[in-house]
Amino acid sequence: MRNIKLIIEYDGSRYCGWQRQKGETTIQQVLEDTLEKLCGEKVQLTGSGRTDSGVHARGQTANFHTRSKIPPDRFSYALNTLLPRDIRIISSEEAGADFHARFSAKAKKYRYSIVNNRHGTAIGWQYYYHVPMHLDIEAMEKAVKHFEGTHDFAAFMAAGSPVKSTVRTIYEAKMVREGDFIHFFFTGDGFLYNMVRIMAGTLIDVGKGKISPDSIPGIILSRDRTQAGPTAPPHGLTLEEVYYENIPVRDA
Amino acid sequence: MRNIKLIIEYDGSRYCGWQRQKGETTIQQVLEDTLEKLCGEKVQLTGSGRTDSGVHARGQTANFHTRSKIPPDRFSYALNTLLPRDIRIISSEEAGADFHARFSAKAKKYRYSIVNNRHGTAIGWQYYYHVPMHLDIEAMEKAVKHFEGTHDFAAFMAAGSPVKSTVRTIYEAKMVREGDFIHFFFTGDGFLYNMVRIMAGTLIDVGKGKISPDSIPGIILSRDRTQAGPTAPPHGLTLEEVYYENIPVRDA
Repeated sequence: MRNIKLIIEYDGSRYCGWQRQKGETTIQQVLEDTLEKLCGEKVQLTGSGRTDSGVHARGQTANFHTRSKIPPDRFSYALNTLLPRDIRIISSEEAGADFHARFSAKAKKYRYSIVNNRHGTAIGWQYYYHVPMHLDIEAMEKAVKHFEGTHDFAAFMAAGSPVKSTVRTIYEAKMVREGDFIHFFFTGDGFLYNMVRIMAGTLIDVGKGKISPDSIPGIILSRDRTQAGPTAPPHGLTLEEVYYENIPVRDA
Repeated sequence: MRNIKLIIEYDGSRYCGWQRQKGETTIQQVLEDTLEKLCGEKVQLTGSGRTDSGVHARGQTANFHTRSKIPPDRFSYALNTLLPRDIRIISSEEAGADFHARFSAKAKKYRYSIVNNRHGTAIGWQYYYHVPMHLDIEAMEKAVKHFEGTHDFAAFMAAGSPVKSTVRTIYEAKMVREGDFIHFFFTGDGFLYNMVRIMAGTLIDVGKGKISPDSIPGIILSRDRTQAGPTAPPHGLTLEEVYYENIPVRDA
């Protein structure tokens, strides 16, 4: 049995998220069904983690075991001829026998993107959360840095998520502005359920003047979900990259 | 009667082009129906020109006459609350009585975008024509410049288009590369039917080595459609801007 690692890009707009669910079209299901056609056997695909309905990925990573004789690097070409245009395989390669897309992951990078003007954007509307109000850019830039470091992020987790520990390390949190478009990037060793979307919603509340940038550390310490901002909608979120080797080091 | 000028951005993916057609969803129809709700009267919208099914616009321009008392600059806000997310009004203003979105237009700028790699792009797949073959970038950069100037572009027009003259002036033709993405920009006093898509298809053939860059002047002189390359698909095309005042001057 070969263990094949795939790097996958997708536009999540048309899908009910990553995870296979009865009666719904999901990324995992489309990929597993396509792999089954290609390999002539049932294939179980393990993703680095789930993404919610409407969330996108530029570097989702997954692995599967197969008896197929297709050379590992040819899977990407073969899959791309069969997959819809909104799911693309960036690369395929043979991984070590112990490689597991979820358990071997050392870190992930997410992006949350907003368009900040009166009218929004028609071109690329699927990829940006539209915020029409004036945003205080400096305040947001100051606030985003407070997320860096090792913290208990319980205040930034959807209520009722079953996890052992709510402590996570964010190696880098930054904001990049390109005209009317604002991107937040978060690189960390792991993320709680809805954590990036709640951090984004909180940063937008900072921009609106509802939360002061220096109150972020206090909100983190509170461990109280009601202290943080709202959960920003899924379509602004993209899983950018999953890291398996070197953990990206935060700027000194 | 007031004459209102709109600048409109749209993602053409879901629409059968600009022009109202029986039984089809088009940009013009959606806008006219929305304006009718807003103004309480039938509204006839005049666009700067048609765009085909699947073609996008960042700066389509249109005008309409109305007895409505809505202040001209408020139309954009009011329309944006009623329109779908893939059609946005960038601005609305009162225009002179003789302003006509089509006949007053002095020049237009179009963009044609391709993604040039093996796998294509999932994010933004609606906006890029996927060309998986290796392209000779230098040859394409050389070729694109041959389109500048005043020429008879009959070889770059869909067969059977009824026009008086096939002479057009291209003020600027350029290519911009951003990683795997290549954009062609054409600014001219007017464009024949499918002209930008045929120029793009010809440039891609130059990139593939099927046409030499220096044979472009000869293809133009031939006035023969069969000498030029294929018509590139609509989804790579975006109407960027319509100019009514200063004609943008080409770099010396």
